[in-house]
Amino acid sequence: MSEKYDVPKYIELINSKLSEMLYSVNDGQDYIIKAMDYSLSNGGKRIRPVLTLEFCRACGGNAEDALNLACSIEMIHTYSLIHDDLPCMDNDDFRRGKPSCHKAYGEEYALLAGDGLLTLAFETALKSENVKQENLIKAVKTLANLAGVAGMVGGQVLDLQSENCEPSLEKLQTIDRLKTGALIKAAALLGCYASNRADEKMLAAAEKYSECIGSAFQIVDDILDVTSTSEVLGKPVGSDEKNNKMTYVSLMGIENSEKEAQRLTDEAVNALECFGSDGELLKELALSLAKRKN
Amino acid sequence: MSEKYDVPKYIELINSKLSEMLYSVNDGQDYIIKAMDYSLSNGGKRIRPVLTLEFCRACGGNAEDALNLACSIEMIHTYSLIHDDLPCMDNDDFRRGKPSCHKAYGEEYALLAGDGLLTLAFETALKSENVKQENLIKAVKTLANLAGVAGMVGGQVLDLQSENCEPSLEKLQTIDRLKTGALIKAAALLGCYASNRADEKMLAAAEKYSECIGSAFQIVDDILDVTSTSEVLGKPVGSDEKNNKMTYVSLMGIENSEKEAQRLTDEAVNALECFGSDGELLKELALSLAKRKN
Repeated sequence: MSEKYDVPKYIELINSKLSEMLYSVNDGQDYIIKAMDYSLSNGGKRIRPVLTLEFCRACGGNAEDALNLACSIEMIHTYSLIHDDLPCMDNDDFRRGKPSCHKAYGEEYALLAGDGLLTLAFETALKSENVKQENLIKAVKTLANLAGVAGMVGGQVLDLQSENCEPSLEKLQTIDRLKTGALIKAAALLGCYASNRADEKMLAAAEKYSECIGSAFQIVDDILDVTSTSEVLGKPVGSDEKNNKMTYVSLMGIENSEKEAQRLTDEAVNALECFGSDGELLKELALSLAKRKN
Repeated sequence: MSEKYDVPKYIELINSKLSEMLYSVNDGQDYIIKAMDYSLSNGGKRIRPVLTLEFCRACGGNAEDALNLACSIEMIHTYSLIHDDLPCMDNDDFRRGKPSCHKAYGEEYALLAGDGLLTLAFETALKSENVKQENLIKAVKTLANLAGVAGMVGGQVLDLQSENCEPSLEKLQTIDRLKTGALIKAAALLGCYASNRADEKMLAAAEKYSECIGSAFQIVDDILDVTSTSEVLGKPVGSDEKNNKMTYVSLMGIENSEKEAQRLTDEAVNALECFGSDGELLKELALSLAKRKN
């Protein structure tokens, strides 16, 4: 059986590889690299890349073989936050309690830092030495599909368009499935591909698990915006209501939202059956995401 | 010997594949796809993808095997124009005589159309069925490298930073080598990789040729901004001087700029020697770029 890891060890590996890839870029680009690093190092939980590494291990692979793919997903996640915060999008001056990228580095550099991270993500992914070429091509194609208009970018578009629409649970679920769900699904699937050992059952389990925790994640986000404090959350609370945003809480109420998050978390845990005891850390992750306070 | 093509035939293949890839994206995203299509179909000369197809053929490959890679480069070129035109960058309301993407579709959708095109580029590239996996990975890695901070994005950063610097020919050459040169180089190299037959000599020739026409292309751009009319050019002339921009004309004068463009074009043509008569169309392309009027 392959070596076991815990989350802090994974995060250490991820942070070190992110730095390595970022600073491997040619000379003379200190400013934009600093802007990219600023957002990449801004205290993210690294949920997606941890999923990638652990799914690789759970499928019987060597977790570190998935490290480049894991980092590529974190880069894409980060670029999407930078572009999301821009004045023409959400116009957010703060991100995790710190000035957002365009506030710290200027709007034009934030735009390019996002473009640079998205591009570096694909370069990083394709430098996965130990993933079989066939699986690597499949993995990066999946990543591009789920990060693009058929996935994350498409979710951002629907989110923008929903501002003037009649709210509905179905619309909200579609937006979240694309906007946050697609990249979480990519994280799980890419880990499976990187293992060079994933069978159809494992891929189906990864898909089910990631869909469920992706939805639960978003529901918990909506709940915390109502029940948490800005100190704990690191961003203003009550912003959804203030912005008249369609959320699970506004559509279902807090109690039903909590029940739904719990149901989805149970479903995610059940999906892990085929991994046996190798699914333990993924189970813990699902439970901790449901119970998180920020 | 493989089939011969001409430029109009290539452009037909490219436009048809671009449409196919664009409209293969899931339902419910009509607006953003239209925004992407608007910029993709905005009368570009398709220089880069034509280079990719023809280098593939000149190396002894089947030109159509390089079609996905060719289109991926055009998508990246187009995304860079959309983001470049945004208010936080060049703030250009027109592109090739038509309202720029953010003027036609709104700033937030232009941002996402660019992100979507960059992401679709990688998905498209990785769907190259007839390129050997090893060569495909090499090709897409090269593309990401030359489109990113070490290449095109890096050039845009240096261009922004040059606004408050002492002008110098060396700085201008570095900016152009990255901002426009890198993607032209990618176009040539990706064609070679896609052929599955390129040797070191061919790769070196493609690199030399593309560097030379990339530089010549930029010099001609600067000359046309002074000598052309806005009707012929499809954009305002004299904008470089108005914006106090560092150009070859401002640094070397028109006559020396013309001589330098000619010298670089000759050098590009000479680099094609190893392709024998298969280099004919590439030679014509270099000459027509030097003589172009818009």
